[in-house]
Amino acid sequence: MEEAAHFVEVGHFFFIFIVVLLSAKLVGELFERIGQPAVLGELVAGVLVGASVLGLVPVDPADPYGAMVHVLAEVGVAILLFEIGLETDLREMFHVGSSALMVAVVGIILPFLFGYLFWYYYEGGASLTAIFIGATLTATSVGITARVLTDLGKINSAEARIIIGAAVIDDILGLLILAVVEGLASTGTISVFGVVKLFALAMGFLAVAMAIGLYTARWIFELVNRMRVRGVLVTFALVFALMLAFFADGVGLAPIVGAFAAGLILSRTNQFDTIVEQIKPVADVFTPIFFVSIGAAVDVSILDPRVAENHEILLVGAGLFVIAVIGKVAAGYSVLRGDINKLAIGAGMVPRGEVGLIFAQIGLLGGILTQDVFSAVLIMVMATTLVTPPVLKLLFERHPSETGQADDRDRPPVHPGMSGLS
Amino acid sequence: MEEAAHFVEVGHFFFIFIVVLLSAKLVGELFERIGQPAVLGELVAGVLVGASVLGLVPVDPADPYGAMVHVLAEVGVAILLFEIGLETDLREMFHVGSSALMVAVVGIILPFLFGYLFWYYYEGGASLTAIFIGATLTATSVGITARVLTDLGKINSAEARIIIGAAVIDDILGLLILAVVEGLASTGTISVFGVVKLFALAMGFLAVAMAIGLYTARWIFELVNRMRVRGVLVTFALVFALMLAFFADGVGLAPIVGAFAAGLILSRTNQFDTIVEQIKPVADVFTPIFFVSIGAAVDVSILDPRVAENHEILLVGAGLFVIAVIGKVAAGYSVLRGDINKLAIGAGMVPRGEVGLIFAQIGLLGGILTQDVFSAVLIMVMATTLVTPPVLKLLFERHPSETGQADDRDRPPVHPGMSGLS
Repeated sequence: MEEAAHFVEVGHFFFIFIVVLLSAKLVGELFERIGQPAVLGELVAGVLVGASVLGLVPVDPADPYGAMVHVLAEVGVAILLFEIGLETDLREMFHVGSSALMVAVVGIILPFLFGYLFWYYYEGGASLTAIFIGATLTATSVGITARVLTDLGKINSAEARIIIGAAVIDDILGLLILAVVEGLASTGTISVFGVVKLFALAMGFLAVAMAIGLYTARWIFELVNRMRVRGVLVTFALVFALMLAFFADGVGLAPIVGAFAAGLILSRTNQFDTIVEQIKPVADVFTPIFFVSIGAAVDVSILDPRVAENHEILLVGAGLFVIAVIGKVAAGYSVLRGDINKLAIGAGMVPRGEVGLIFAQIGLLGGILTQDVFSAVLIMVMATTLVTPPVLKLLFERHPSETGQADDRDRPPVHPGMSGLS
Repeated sequence: MEEAAHFVEVGHFFFIFIVVLLSAKLVGELFERIGQPAVLGELVAGVLVGASVLGLVPVDPADPYGAMVHVLAEVGVAILLFEIGLETDLREMFHVGSSALMVAVVGIILPFLFGYLFWYYYEGGASLTAIFIGATLTATSVGITARVLTDLGKINSAEARIIIGAAVIDDILGLLILAVVEGLASTGTISVFGVVKLFALAMGFLAVAMAIGLYTARWIFELVNRMRVRGVLVTFALVFALMLAFFADGVGLAPIVGAFAAGLILSRTNQFDTIVEQIKPVADVFTPIFFVSIGAAVDVSILDPRVAENHEILLVGAGLFVIAVIGKVAAGYSVLRGDINKLAIGAGMVPRGEVGLIFAQIGLLGGILTQDVFSAVLIMVMATTLVTPPVLKLLFERHPSETGQADDRDRPPVHPGMSGLS
């Protein structure tokens, strides 16, 4: 086809799409094989195909192809959060009870404080950057945790249920923190009124969206169920997610907040099983674009220890990593029950994964994190994600007597669909 | 998120994506309800949301959003042809035998000749446009035909098998005609050597791709089957389709030729069922972009009969429609068997659907069809697609005694997945 008149060449876009999907799956598989989360492999794949190594996948939004990758990555992360929302059952949080809540809350407060204070003393004063670094440390990647516990066959242990319950609470609180932090990134100031307003806006949006959604989704999807055209269910589910993402974007929140709310709403419809099953291949195609594009934003030259200027980045990254581990492990010890492996719970909360990356990317795009600080945060995210699977394996295998087993072993895993998210 | 630095706004892209999917499904459903093919509804949805009516979905490749819609539409049509390839069984053509071959060949030669001569005498000489119009008339939309026959419960009749067999042959020959015609569109000249070369290139590419593909696909997908990362099968299937599309594009063929070949190859792997099942939701999300973008390219002001300048377009469109019907109905009468409803076979071959649209779009983008001629061709495509379902229904219901029933009624429909393509 004659493409001369076109803004972008179809063939070249196909090439970029192929490189993204192929590198994500191949390096993801490699990491899976060496006992690491596949999501880490997708990030590394992004680093390899990105501008600073092979230069195959552009992510600069000022470049036509980079803009396309960026937009499709946003669709990908929206579908990812939509899936997380679909798999999140609000009632399950009440079941796992006070232990999970304690771990989640302590696991947000301590890392935030540690991160904020670390940067406060490092830079010599309060700043948006300090708040952002604190926020980045609060995240827990429930996908990575659930996946590792499934692989270890420990998904029905008491520890696993507390970890997953806490991670789910973390996800929801994290979305609110994200909303606040994102508002800060766009307004650029710290204002108590602003924070309260953004928090109210976030809660208000979620409440209104959830209320309208829960009220209307059932009959909308009953109507959809009676429609005859092909693919109508998966299309309407995606439209629903994109629409709430669009509305969230319209009121100044992150699109993913809306997509997550859409998932929570649709998890209560009768068509839930079909939606989960059919959105999965769509997510498989779109979400790697997000992780690869995040990796492709890393400038590897900054990580070279032979370059003197990089020593600071590496030191800051190492400092953040230590803080990140201590904060979450301490949260594990906040559980009051005695018959439980508290160290394993804390370790299970350590990986920051995609949520931490989202925070870091917003900070980078908003100009709050410099490329250097972004790289340091990325070192922390990658290190926490990398270190968890082998440590968890060790902890669950060394202390089998301490590992309380759940009485309802035949219960399905809490997050079956999530196990593949990492 | 701060989007000021971005080339395109994520929120606005989400909006376009929502409009495309929602309008496609709603108008598609409306058409389905009034007994018309859903694909026609998607085209009409495109007309409504396109530049000449509501102006919500840009298709101009020189506009950043239009470029994105164009590229994603190309991904959509590649996935559509990949699906058609997956559902096409080369061996089935041998079963339906000489009748199907006769209908297919006569149904290509007559409409091509009629179309060529129509334009030859209309314009007063040979031209690329005459060849293009002839080529556009050769197409048969197997999706629309199969869907209508399934809805009528006649999918296992002898007529249905001949129609579907002929439509499958048409599809394959049509892809070769497409390759020739597309080569003509890009080189701009009629050269016997060029046609032979392009035909050889097309056949050579298909032969080499099929040979290498058939030889390697089995063990590639055996390896893929042993991979552990999430969504690896659907991702590799899509990568395989995009890769052959990219190679086809590289040797000057249409990307969809490669995607179709990829489907044919993968229809012979052990993972076939899973691939078909998982690619379906991905196709559901991408293919409406293609049909809506085709509709959005229509300038409705040209179709207004109150404007004097439009009379010629409407007359040419009507002329092409008459030719299109006569050519395919005559092909139905080429069947030598006597115990069969030949008129119904001919009528079943009439809808031009997506293949005719692809030809027309290439002609438009290549500058061979003017906007006026494109509109006339579109009138023909829409009219043939619109008229077929009610006529087929009438013919199959009026002459039940003439309708030969197949002896193997328990055989599954030849193209189960295709029934939804229309």
